[in-house]
Amino acid sequence: MSAKVALDLHPDRLLPAEPGQRAIARRLYDTVRDLPIISPHGHVPPRWLAEDIPFTDPTSLLITPDHYINRMLHAHGAPLSDLGVGRGPLSEADARKAFRLLCEHWSAYRGTPVRYWLEDELVSIFGVDVRPSVESADHIYDTIAARIASPEFRPRALFHEFKIDTLATTDDPCDDLSAHRQLREDPTWDGRVIPTFRPDKYLEPALPTWNADLDRLADVSGVDTGDLAGFIAALEDRRRYFTENGAVSSDHSHTDARTDILPESEAARIFAAARSGEVSVDEATALRRHLVSEMARMACDDGLVMTLHPAVRRNHHTATHEKYGADVGCDIPISVEFTDALRPLLNAYGTHPNFQLVLFTIDETVYSREIAPLAGFYPSVYAGVPWWFIDAPEAIRRFRGAITESAGFSRTSGFIDDTRAFCSIPARHDMSRRLDAGFLSQLVAEHRLPEDEAVEAIGDLVATNPRKAFKL
Amino acid sequence: MSAKVALDLHPDRLLPAEPGQRAIARRLYDTVRDLPIISPHGHVPPRWLAEDIPFTDPTSLLITPDHYINRMLHAHGAPLSDLGVGRGPLSEADARKAFRLLCEHWSAYRGTPVRYWLEDELVSIFGVDVRPSVESADHIYDTIAARIASPEFRPRALFHEFKIDTLATTDDPCDDLSAHRQLREDPTWDGRVIPTFRPDKYLEPALPTWNADLDRLADVSGVDTGDLAGFIAALEDRRRYFTENGAVSSDHSHTDARTDILPESEAARIFAAARSGEVSVDEATALRRHLVSEMARMACDDGLVMTLHPAVRRNHHTATHEKYGADVGCDIPISVEFTDALRPLLNAYGTHPNFQLVLFTIDETVYSREIAPLAGFYPSVYAGVPWWFIDAPEAIRRFRGAITESAGFSRTSGFIDDTRAFCSIPARHDMSRRLDAGFLSQLVAEHRLPEDEAVEAIGDLVATNPRKAFKL
Amino acid sequence: MSAKVALDLHPDRLLPAEPGQRAIARRLYDTVRDLPIISPHGHVPPRWLAEDIPFTDPTSLLITPDHYINRMLHAHGAPLSDLGVGRGPLSEADARKAFRLLCEHWSAYRGTPVRYWLEDELVSIFGVDVRPSVESADHIYDTIAARIASPEFRPRALFHEFKIDTLATTDDPCDDLSAHRQLREDPTWDGRVIPTFRPDKYLEPALPTWNADLDRLADVSGVDTGDLAGFIAALEDRRRYFTENGAVSSDHSHTDARTDILPESEAARIFAAARSGEVSVDEATALRRHLVSEMARMACDDGLVMTLHPAVRRNHHTATHEKYGADVGCDIPISVEFTDALRPLLNAYGTHPNFQLVLFTIDETVYSREIAPLAGFYPSVYAGVPWWFIDAPEAIRRFRGAITESAGFSRTSGFIDDTRAFCSIPARHDMSRRLDAGFLSQLVAEHRLPEDEAVEAIGDLVATNPRKAFKL
Repeated sequence: MSAKVALDLHPDRLLPAEPGQRAIARRLYDTVRDLPIISPHGHVPPRWLAEDIPFTDPTSLLITPDHYINRMLHAHGAPLSDLGVGRGPLSEADARKAFRLLCEHWSAYRGTPVRYWLEDELVSIFGVDVRPSVESADHIYDTIAARIASPEFRPRALFHEFKIDTLATTDDPCDDLSAHRQLREDPTWDGRVIPTFRPDKYLEPALPTWNADLDRLADVSGVDTGDLAGFIAALEDRRRYFTENGAVSSDHSHTDARTDILPESEAARIFAAARSGEVSVDEATALRRHLVSEMARMACDDGLVMTLHPAVRRNHHTATHEKYGADVGCDIPISVEFTDALRPLLNAYGTHPNFQLVLFTIDETVYSREIAPLAGFYPSVYAGVPWWFIDAPEAIRRFRGAITESAGFSRTSGFIDDTRAFCSIPARHDMSRRLDAGFLSQLVAEHRLPEDEAVEAIGDLVATNPRKAFKL
Repeated sequence: MSAKVALDLHPDRLLPAEPGQRAIARRLYDTVRDLPIISPHGHVPPRWLAEDIPFTDPTSLLITPDHYINRMLHAHGAPLSDLGVGRGPLSEADARKAFRLLCEHWSAYRGTPVRYWLEDELVSIFGVDVRPSVESADHIYDTIAARIASPEFRPRALFHEFKIDTLATTDDPCDDLSAHRQLREDPTWDGRVIPTFRPDKYLEPALPTWNADLDRLADVSGVDTGDLAGFIAALEDRRRYFTENGAVSSDHSHTDARTDILPESEAARIFAAARSGEVSVDEATALRRHLVSEMARMACDDGLVMTLHPAVRRNHHTATHEKYGADVGCDIPISVEFTDALRPLLNAYGTHPNFQLVLFTIDETVYSREIAPLAGFYPSVYAGVPWWFIDAPEAIRRFRGAITESAGFSRTSGFIDDTRAFCSIPARHDMSRRLDAGFLSQLVAEHRLPEDEAVEAIGDLVATNPRKAFKL
Repeated sequence: MSAKVALDLHPDRLLPAEPGQRAIARRLYDTVRDLPIISPHGHVPPRWLAEDIPFTDPTSLLITPDHYINRMLHAHGAPLSDLGVGRGPLSEADARKAFRLLCEHWSAYRGTPVRYWLEDELVSIFGVDVRPSVESADHIYDTIAARIASPEFRPRALFHEFKIDTLATTDDPCDDLSAHRQLREDPTWDGRVIPTFRPDKYLEPALPTWNADLDRLADVSGVDTGDLAGFIAALEDRRRYFTENGAVSSDHSHTDARTDILPESEAARIFAAARSGEVSVDEATALRRHLVSEMARMACDDGLVMTLHPAVRRNHHTATHEKYGADVGCDIPISVEFTDALRPLLNAYGTHPNFQLVLFTIDETVYSREIAPLAGFYPSVYAGVPWWFIDAPEAIRRFRGAITESAGFSRTSGFIDDTRAFCSIPARHDMSRRLDAGFLSQLVAEHRLPEDEAVEAIGDLVATNPRKAFKL
């Protein structure tokens, strides 16, 4: 890899190569390219926006918090600590060293969406015009560092620059949502930043932290969580608080998608056992599945959309987890099953007019077999777009190819970026628009859909579907 | 969506967009476009043809009985009863209302095979030339209503118009096949309409209706079904009756594909327990798996081809099932396993010269992993084409892409339409021919197959394969 | 199929059809077309090369030992014995008859890689210029027979003609590797032929041959295998012997990929029970899984790369196995799971600097869900290219499409041919290069990768990756 090679973005990137089809795809893409971004699920810390905290350096902005990037460098032998993971603020020397590691391994990202997003960010946001390499690393670092020092690159300015219409964060049920309140009460701020209710750990009685979390929940809600009824009431209270503060959805990520509903007395019995620290793993799992269905029951009342992100083995490498904590790149997906797993929940609430359930998966086998058939029958079910490891061009094409024939376009969620990498948000949404334009262009080129309908379809995917699926 | 937009069918629809490849595909498609239709598995009621019953109205022809269509409207909030499901004949007002619902949600079907088939039917059969919409609904309704009132649109006329060579129906083992006999004995009728032996419910001792069904089987066959030997003899008797009346295959759809063979005494013991109403779910399942292998044993004797359509969770939404009955759109597929499941059956009968087994799946994961390897070794095994939810363009392309490399073209079943939507039969077979032309054109364009062999291959797929796989 | 139709190889075969993309693919392919072949895993008998044994006739060279070919003829009704399977040397009449069977069923192989490889071999190696058919069979037989009678077609000459840089064989741990030693000590031979340590049957205490195999292992290693410690020491001894004789990897193929590590005492207890012939199936399986992890532990010490080829139901058709033995075409894949299965092994050794693990699968569902995420985090894990049934154009395209986005190109193994069909080696490697050129050309044509980087990437795939993944 030679130094000082130009880096630029081709206007037709990701559009299909065949000239006739590309021309159609270009026309479709042009109709949505500049539409505002709706981001109904993600992980940007709301405090960044509330306090408009300047980004400190390129590494802590782009590398340290992004496990998509770090995991590949780890696979190439870089210790996570060299990337800033699990450390406080880096010295400039260390930040430059980490940035150089990324540039040195630029070739490792060939063909990955990480590379695609980074290139888009580097060029579109930071004005970088040289390909990352060992030789160009410092120059690129300096270019970014200079930009983020200016006020136009603070989070609030970027939020507007990115044309973000709505940004959802992900929040603990006990969070006081002060950052969200601060934003809403700020007369100088007109962006929409909304919380998401994410109760996972409160629904897992086997976790060692569970009892302490429930005590905290009691404190925050003012409702005694000593028995199941109280716990349920406390959760309802916090959901209400979230709803009052703008939340439109709750998000759920457990090892499986099962939703078996227990008899009331059995649920109460297990809950009591768990509260006294005497619950078996099987009982804890049974209660968690019951509680996931309870979330659906509450959703029928309070209207929060329910999203499922199941089936990831978290912290697969124990030593890495012990040293660096969670969310550092060693979560590995497992297979999932929806048809039988969701049956109790869907039999109870699947046709309730106030209920909406968006199903995400990393296990692509369920697209045509389970998700599309479910979303093509139940008015409540939406097929969520590809997530995490498969939020990538080829996988997104497979998604449309596998989902559309049973569920059409209208039963899909619209794009979610699901990211904590704030600067990657425009690139991710733009990627999705290009890919949807490409998929639709094939339908048009093969005379399976008139072009005027394809224009309407892509407009829906960008604007209508996320508003409908997430009640925005 | 505006009113009065033209609706037409492009002659190149579904062929690949790349001009060089499209030219090849066109040439291939042209060689089979007008060949007669062989439909070795489907669900058209034979009485329609026997009595040449006129279609009454567009809704009861196209919407009410078609769960492919209804399920999507249900997902968009339409009660199934508004579509005529579970009701008697509709008033004209209600029929028009249902038809308007479909036209109103025309955009929901974008990218689905339902839309593709309907467009083909509307234009090719009914002469509709305007895109369905709220505004055009009544006009289209009237156009179709006028057509089906004329004698050329009665089932027998359409059968010939569609160039149907052979049409298989699906029938209960106790059916007297009088409609089939009526057709065969009618000197004015020269079409081939054959029954298919579908014994599912007789093989499931856990069903509440099982004992009554076996009593009826005894009545019809004249063989006492009080013990296993009698039951087996009664089934053999009915298979013989079906064979005598033209049947070439038996069809089987159970929750799994297992075929474990029980010791004779154990099978007899469970059968006796089931007959006296004292069978456990596990025992009933074990007996069903044994009986599926018994069907294979009988097939070696009587030559009926055996087809498997496993792994669908029927009536997933209990409330819908209770209100509307079965086959109304809430069946959802589950994963399937063939390698181990079929091993007992294939070890016993897999190389028997008189045995043929066609494997269908909605779980695409088994294509390259299990079905193609099985069909590429066992002389009896054929890979069935995509079925139900995946009988669709992208899925059919995936099927050929996943099956061909281990099983070639010769070990596949040929197209089956599996439909109760009589008017969709030509569109479905034509779709299949276009897609096979497209797949083969890629092999030719990439210099993996000479064009003269591609011509032979597509001819085989349309004419030779179904005759061979179904012994027609 | 008519006689005397020309057979030739198009220079653009397998490259994408779209002209712009094909031009790019051609340029990429041209940069690697003539590079030497690195074959780090395969099944060519080393004695062929050690003794430079002439091939006797076309059938025993191309048909009898190749279960890819035989299984399809079996599916079309040919008894395996007619193809020479399970027999000694064939008479010329029988060899011709078998060869005619293949030519007669040439159409059955349309769209399969077997056909693709055979055509390449026939034209490139044997100078055949007529399409196989009943009529041309004898002519082709004669053409090949004439060639293999000449000294330029003996194995050593072909090894050089094929530009093989390195060829790995697969060997029993008790093998004395005399063929490998003979080659290494031959001053007239400069090719690199290395053994691979394949201990499967020694790790399966449930096999009836296990105790005898362990006795033989004791004899060969001079280490008492009466207890677990001795057995482990004996395996370590044989691994050392293999390493000293050039081995770079050990290969493992069991029914599942689990690696649960037993407490030392429990492992020893089960081992003792097995040695005295009193082990249960579950215990034997538990010990095997433990021993697979032991292999990883040893690999950290001796540096042998570990490759996994799991999840095939061997000898699916018992009657065929009993008549013809193993590896005759009736092995059928089953589903596999890696994420949880490999967790014990990867937690123990996954970040050890001396450890490398290459994961192969026939179950494509694990590509994007498990293998790519694992290879994109663990420095030790490499994604193996498609294997056996899926070592084929469409499947290889799916592999790159599913793996690259999480693991890039750098975490994949490079091509392995895994073949016992010596003459198919150049065609297989060439096929892989063409397909990788095609995949990369799409990235270039869609402006996802600059062409200079695609050139570097394909060079890595052919030369760097296999050397790195297999420590060559």
